[in-house]
Amino acid sequence: MPTRSWIPVPADSPFPVSNLPYGIVTIPDGRGPRMAVAIGDHVVDVAALSAIGLFDGVADEPLETFGAPVLNPLLSCGRATWTATRDRLLQLLTDESYRAKVEPTLLLRSEATSLLPFEVADYVDFYSSEQHANNVSQIFRPESPQLPENWKHLPIGYHGRSGTVVVSGTPIRRPSGQRKPRGADQPTFGPSERLDIEAEVGFVVGVPSPLGSQVPAASFRDHVFGVVLVNDWSARDIQAWEYVPLGPFLGKSFATSVSPWVVPLDALEMARVPLPSQAPPVMAYLKDSDPWCLDLSLEVRLNGTVVSRPPFATQYWSPGQQLAHLTVNGAALRTGDLYASGTVSGPHQDQFGSLLELSWGASKPFLLETGQERTFLLDGDTVSISGWAPGSDGTRIGFGRVDGTIVASDD
Amino acid sequence: MPTRSWIPVPADSPFPVSNLPYGIVTIPDGRGPRMAVAIGDHVVDVAALSAIGLFDGVADEPLETFGAPVLNPLLSCGRATWTATRDRLLQLLTDESYRAKVEPTLLLRSEATSLLPFEVADYVDFYSSEQHANNVSQIFRPESPQLPENWKHLPIGYHGRSGTVVVSGTPIRRPSGQRKPRGADQPTFGPSERLDIEAEVGFVVGVPSPLGSQVPAASFRDHVFGVVLVNDWSARDIQAWEYVPLGPFLGKSFATSVSPWVVPLDALEMARVPLPSQAPPVMAYLKDSDPWCLDLSLEVRLNGTVVSRPPFATQYWSPGQQLAHLTVNGAALRTGDLYASGTVSGPHQDQFGSLLELSWGASKPFLLETGQERTFLLDGDTVSISGWAPGSDGTRIGFGRVDGTIVASDD
Repeated sequence: MPTRSWIPVPADSPFPVSNLPYGIVTIPDGRGPRMAVAIGDHVVDVAALSAIGLFDGVADEPLETFGAPVLNPLLSCGRATWTATRDRLLQLLTDESYRAKVEPTLLLRSEATSLLPFEVADYVDFYSSEQHANNVSQIFRPESPQLPENWKHLPIGYHGRSGTVVVSGTPIRRPSGQRKPRGADQPTFGPSERLDIEAEVGFVVGVPSPLGSQVPAASFRDHVFGVVLVNDWSARDIQAWEYVPLGPFLGKSFATSVSPWVVPLDALEMARVPLPSQAPPVMAYLKDSDPWCLDLSLEVRLNGTVVSRPPFATQYWSPGQQLAHLTVNGAALRTGDLYASGTVSGPHQDQFGSLLELSWGASKPFLLETGQERTFLLDGDTVSISGWAPGSDGTRIGFGRVDGTIVASDD
Repeated sequence: MPTRSWIPVPADSPFPVSNLPYGIVTIPDGRGPRMAVAIGDHVVDVAALSAIGLFDGVADEPLETFGAPVLNPLLSCGRATWTATRDRLLQLLTDESYRAKVEPTLLLRSEATSLLPFEVADYVDFYSSEQHANNVSQIFRPESPQLPENWKHLPIGYHGRSGTVVVSGTPIRRPSGQRKPRGADQPTFGPSERLDIEAEVGFVVGVPSPLGSQVPAASFRDHVFGVVLVNDWSARDIQAWEYVPLGPFLGKSFATSVSPWVVPLDALEMARVPLPSQAPPVMAYLKDSDPWCLDLSLEVRLNGTVVSRPPFATQYWSPGQQLAHLTVNGAALRTGDLYASGTVSGPHQDQFGSLLELSWGASKPFLLETGQERTFLLDGDTVSISGWAPGSDGTRIGFGRVDGTIVASDD
């Protein structure tokens, strides 16, 4: 693969030419939302390139595919078109002979406004970090900490609210709701007092599957287009009171933030790592002989202070296993389905992916560089999650960031 | 309101002119999916009426609204347009002077094929029948049957899979998955052996709400367009093994069937009944001074035998309270959101809305008219849920039916 673009890329950029993540941006000229690819400090206006015929032959309907205001039409095209699109982009961005045509479509990333890159169909959140699940058990049930009985037999998951998946930068209003503090007789109402984050990795489904069919783990690459970072904001007090017996609902559904750039699987071949050993052995439908476990290092900042570096490679369940489980009952996939890993927590205290764990249930406040203490989030706090994975030729594949700032409740 | 249409309507029809439910159909001439309204044994091709200008002035963009292949554009218009649309339809169908223009757009309902009437945004399922919740507690925890502690403080709910909401008549493939029978050491894999129904009532959201805002119960009529019947198919064995701690997932996500005709709220004024008494008193945000509780009688048939008649009027939580709860954390509503009541079970044994309850956890098989016994569903079984509510002038508002036949698993 060509490794140098005629576009200068800063050495520490999350977006070398080996990455080429896809997004949807608006640009200052007032034209509508358009498909773009990030490279270095720039974005390439893919819609404009398509309009001058540079994607002819890449997709069956290039103008509809690359001129759409969301990634969904491209997502629905499937692996062959995804690869052809990436090959064409690499050609355009590395071959000097295209420079005269492509350069006018470039603009500084700082001048583009990123939108939610795809229309989310169904959103599923898993619970696939053993360390996280263990931490939660210890925090909430210190007398008998143990994983749920089913935890090592299947990747536990639930459906979230796809209509409240928002792009990085969207302000997060502190949710109100019912909660019942320990020892209280009655529930009370008010803004959440235990507002938390969950640092996660999300997988974006492109190719649908019919109702009544199963998608094996081995078909992961045929259905999944790429990867985003996810912050699954969580109101722990609301969640704790509501979640028995039907699971999280309002404690999660107020907002889920995603990073604006969808990193294609094709950029992540070098980041693949083996599946951790799984005992007891998994059922046949969960076997994943070619897993897409990723050496993806997350970094969580709170008001600028790095508070955690969760390692995604420590997840117990692979994304292919999650996909196989999600569809084993015949549930259909749709273009734009998003499924997330669940909170990523590594074995060390500075690798936990939630404030619940970092403050050990609010019993151990942690320090920011400003000298301030935190357990859960205060109004005005800004959380920023970034991620990096090894790329080809010694490059690093960045995932950009998923940011959010807490806005006070109206209540 | 005019009570007689120039279209003959059989006396026992679910679709008198006081009903006028909306659907999407295909018709034998091969034209694409189109908006239709059911009346008697006929459907009126609303798209065709719109194309000849008969809905001009009713919506801002009549052709886009009434010519769409889903109800969503109409749903998004809001209450004023919904009322104007209904008024126009009543005029067209009761005033003989329109007969010459309208008659050519009629066709027999039996010749139309109903499609899923709206694109489902998010699907939420509640758990709002006290009798059902009590039954479930007694069946699973006979030694200490009690409602969950939160049950009378908030309408418990969870998000389902909107991508597997299907229209009545869609075959339901028996789902496979993991289950762990009581007393077994290890989970096993295979087709569900406890496939069940849940007879429910669904509410279709038309008008969206912005992220970060709350929708009060009093705004129910401004946001909710109409009502459908729902069969929330459930694999009890899969659900029982998976649902701790994050709630139902694969035990539900394989399919949820809805009736093809969305009955508008305007047709249900006469069916409104008071909110049951609620003790302890509900929090301020759950007060509903103008509730849309409905005297809606469901009927569940299994292979033709009526096995239950669940009365929706016995629900503990009102649809307005459910809407207020759903959004109290600032979760946005979208056009096409669907939320369902949860299983409707009345106080008597022949009013239970699931086979789990009708067979009391498979301990008491019940008889069909054929002499066959049932507990859970067998392959080839057909379930049909219908519903009726009182209409104006002594008419009855029918909801049509939500049907489904079980197809054997491939596993």
